[in-house]
Amino acid sequence: MTHAIDHSRNMIDLAGQTRERLVSLLTLARSFDDCTGMPKQDAELRARLSGKSVCNLFFEDSTRTRVSFSLAARNLGAGITNLTGPGSSVTKGETLVDTALTVEATGGHALVVRSGAAGAAELIAKHVHVPVINAGDGAHEHPTQGLLDVYALAAALGGGRESSFDLSGITVGIVGDIVNSRVARSDIIAMTKLGARVICVGPAPLAPRSLEVLGCEVSSDLDAVLGELDAVQMLRIQFERHGSGGSDKPGSPPGVGSVREYRSLYALTERRAGGMKPGAVIMHPGPMNRGLEMDGTVADGPNSVVRKQVSAGTLVRMAVLADLLGG
Amino acid sequence: MTHAIDHSRNMIDLAGQTRERLVSLLTLARSFDDCTGMPKQDAELRARLSGKSVCNLFFEDSTRTRVSFSLAARNLGAGITNLTGPGSSVTKGETLVDTALTVEATGGHALVVRSGAAGAAELIAKHVHVPVINAGDGAHEHPTQGLLDVYALAAALGGGRESSFDLSGITVGIVGDIVNSRVARSDIIAMTKLGARVICVGPAPLAPRSLEVLGCEVSSDLDAVLGELDAVQMLRIQFERHGSGGSDKPGSPPGVGSVREYRSLYALTERRAGGMKPGAVIMHPGPMNRGLEMDGTVADGPNSVVRKQVSAGTLVRMAVLADLLGG
Amino acid sequence: MTHAIDHSRNMIDLAGQTRERLVSLLTLARSFDDCTGMPKQDAELRARLSGKSVCNLFFEDSTRTRVSFSLAARNLGAGITNLTGPGSSVTKGETLVDTALTVEATGGHALVVRSGAAGAAELIAKHVHVPVINAGDGAHEHPTQGLLDVYALAAALGGGRESSFDLSGITVGIVGDIVNSRVARSDIIAMTKLGARVICVGPAPLAPRSLEVLGCEVSSDLDAVLGELDAVQMLRIQFERHGSGGSDKPGSPPGVGSVREYRSLYALTERRAGGMKPGAVIMHPGPMNRGLEMDGTVADGPNSVVRKQVSAGTLVRMAVLADLLGG
Repeated sequence: MTHAIDHSRNMIDLAGQTRERLVSLLTLARSFDDCTGMPKQDAELRARLSGKSVCNLFFEDSTRTRVSFSLAARNLGAGITNLTGPGSSVTKGETLVDTALTVEATGGHALVVRSGAAGAAELIAKHVHVPVINAGDGAHEHPTQGLLDVYALAAALGGGRESSFDLSGITVGIVGDIVNSRVARSDIIAMTKLGARVICVGPAPLAPRSLEVLGCEVSSDLDAVLGELDAVQMLRIQFERHGSGGSDKPGSPPGVGSVREYRSLYALTERRAGGMKPGAVIMHPGPMNRGLEMDGTVADGPNSVVRKQVSAGTLVRMAVLADLLGG
Repeated sequence: MTHAIDHSRNMIDLAGQTRERLVSLLTLARSFDDCTGMPKQDAELRARLSGKSVCNLFFEDSTRTRVSFSLAARNLGAGITNLTGPGSSVTKGETLVDTALTVEATGGHALVVRSGAAGAAELIAKHVHVPVINAGDGAHEHPTQGLLDVYALAAALGGGRESSFDLSGITVGIVGDIVNSRVARSDIIAMTKLGARVICVGPAPLAPRSLEVLGCEVSSDLDAVLGELDAVQMLRIQFERHGSGGSDKPGSPPGVGSVREYRSLYALTERRAGGMKPGAVIMHPGPMNRGLEMDGTVADGPNSVVRKQVSAGTLVRMAVLADLLGG
Repeated sequence: MTHAIDHSRNMIDLAGQTRERLVSLLTLARSFDDCTGMPKQDAELRARLSGKSVCNLFFEDSTRTRVSFSLAARNLGAGITNLTGPGSSVTKGETLVDTALTVEATGGHALVVRSGAAGAAELIAKHVHVPVINAGDGAHEHPTQGLLDVYALAAALGGGRESSFDLSGITVGIVGDIVNSRVARSDIIAMTKLGARVICVGPAPLAPRSLEVLGCEVSSDLDAVLGELDAVQMLRIQFERHGSGGSDKPGSPPGVGSVREYRSLYALTERRAGGMKPGAVIMHPGPMNRGLEMDGTVADGPNSVVRKQVSAGTLVRMAVLADLLGG
């Protein structure tokens, strides 16, 4: 009952996409950009997917991703149906695949799948015949996040890169819990495919040497590499993921003795940001713990593109939907 | 403050509908069918209920039914608003009827009502003036499920039945927990109104003789009747409904010693399915416990119309909405 | 990063609005009224905000308000995206403002904000650049509720007031837990700005003298003032707010010994309603505890405009959205 996946008819992971296809999707996203990073107000655009229905099949909730896909669909005239949270058929013991097949049979034209399990979107795509878009699957990939990060980065770098999406000559640091982060994985793949040099930075348990198979470098010393970076993507400390040793206090990230020690070594403080190259681009995928992995003044400073990343998310999701739904 | 219910302006139960009206709704559903069981992609269809708003008033959640009504409404150009789950006014102690009156006053054009309480939709329909569609009320009825099951069955039988919806000469078995199933009730009523002979099969506590008042036969021996059936609808074992005797294990269905014994007597195994008439239609309303009431190979086999039932659900709900909202 | 709030580009509170603007919004709402209190079925109206997306950012759930805003947006052709409940980014420790900034960056055109914290909508409006509509912030204000109450009241009074919205010469009683009620606050402000005399009635802890700064009178004796009232708004006893002294019983409202005593002093019973002026207007913002603060026969009686308040809610929310989104 399964079939092979055509990566040009689905968006399962960036590892399955060619550089040409990444550039093509980013170029399509740029055609939707009103030059401020927001979608054009355009009647033609709003009719592009008229009559299509996109189903958000979120086995794990995520407001920001869900809303971004919803508005992306709406901006193209498609409807959105949400299947989320408690009370869904999932809790009655139905399998992931049966749920997806049911949704397909109901008549949705594309499935946006979010799951805590790596491989969930791929498994579903092997069974259904409508396009599947991975909106995050465990620690595997979050491909539209990778696309939005390179879109926002290229826009901030300018100098022609905002339209060529060529990142050669650019060094990007990704800092934090790399190994458990689908965002980091999709970023590394997207950025290196587009020519960037990527350095992953964190304590060894969170940024192990084994990451080098993805084509990036690895360091445990942020201060040593900071001066080389043209851009830095600061990952969120995921307290809810790290054990708290039986206490009510948030747990320490692995590899460091405490949150304070983590902050002293890996946070993008105002002081550290001041030591970066002039104009170095500051990124964070959100939601942010202000004052922990990044100082609020840095997040709100002139080099931060944190909000631009969010608005780029709507644009690249519009591009993926328009491309896959044939609009 | 209450008024009598006009069954031609509401869809409370199939018991309240004539055979002519069932055929009329099924014929309307068929006019929306693109011949593969999916809704036609048709601009005229998508404008049919333009400007109308349908409210899903679900006091009990059900993703598949909610999504099916949502996509049905959208396919006709109507908007959908969901009132579901925790945080709704219901939890503030408001009565069912006050909630429905409030929603009506807000300006919705139809209410789709789901509730764990038998009679909820009827009670609401006696108070509001917009059409009410019962999307399942306790163990009473689930009328659009009955409609979709006869639609999918007639389509699978073919030979003119797919357009006449005449089921005379056809014998259908419904197997499992009949007495607690609104699906079974609506199926029995729809199938017998259309001329089918229906045999309900299960252990006596789940398929008691008293069901005969509905116009069906009753048996506790699946193997004895299997050879007579032109179609079988396998009901889901509702573990969440059966007590577990204080343990964490799922409880046994009443009337049998264990889930294993239930399966040995009443499951549609590959072996049992092989002993049915050639071409006998295999149905299940979902969600399915694969390997319990039905083997996965049977569910995915050539005679299974499980997915067709789901897609028929969207078509018949479109028909009910189009009919009641005067589109 | 914050900016001053332009009260003509947001709807944060009625205290920030002029009488002229209230009348202008109410007049706009009336232009949407089909003369029965329901929105006109009008293709032009349904295209007015076409292509706009309204985001319901509800940190505290409220079905009736959310649905009313949703249908109001839909009636004008705008899309609605809901950000509600568990699993939202809020639970990951993100600040209110960051969440709102994220939603703005995603591309929504207006934020409807509900929160248990007084000042939440204002705080957000200081940071984002799209219009913010307060849908209730703690015990502060619920401005569209104030607007809908004066709309429904003026419509019930008639005699030209339904179009002038002039309430001079009219005395309104508001009865119950005034001090904790954002509804009462917005009502007092709206009604007094439009010329009404307002008497707040309740036990001293719930209706303290300090309310007089809002321009209303205060009484603890309902029977003493009842004969003077042209209209009465009965507030809901908020059992979930009042402590229950460690027992499972609902707690008594402060200032009285028991729910029974509260009812004997402050409920609008059939007997009390019969002692009011002929034609005095009976109001309740809902959801109602029938048989507690108001007898069911009164709520359903000829002078009750409880349902009209709900339908007025859709009209005034349409007016606020149309005004702020420039449609």
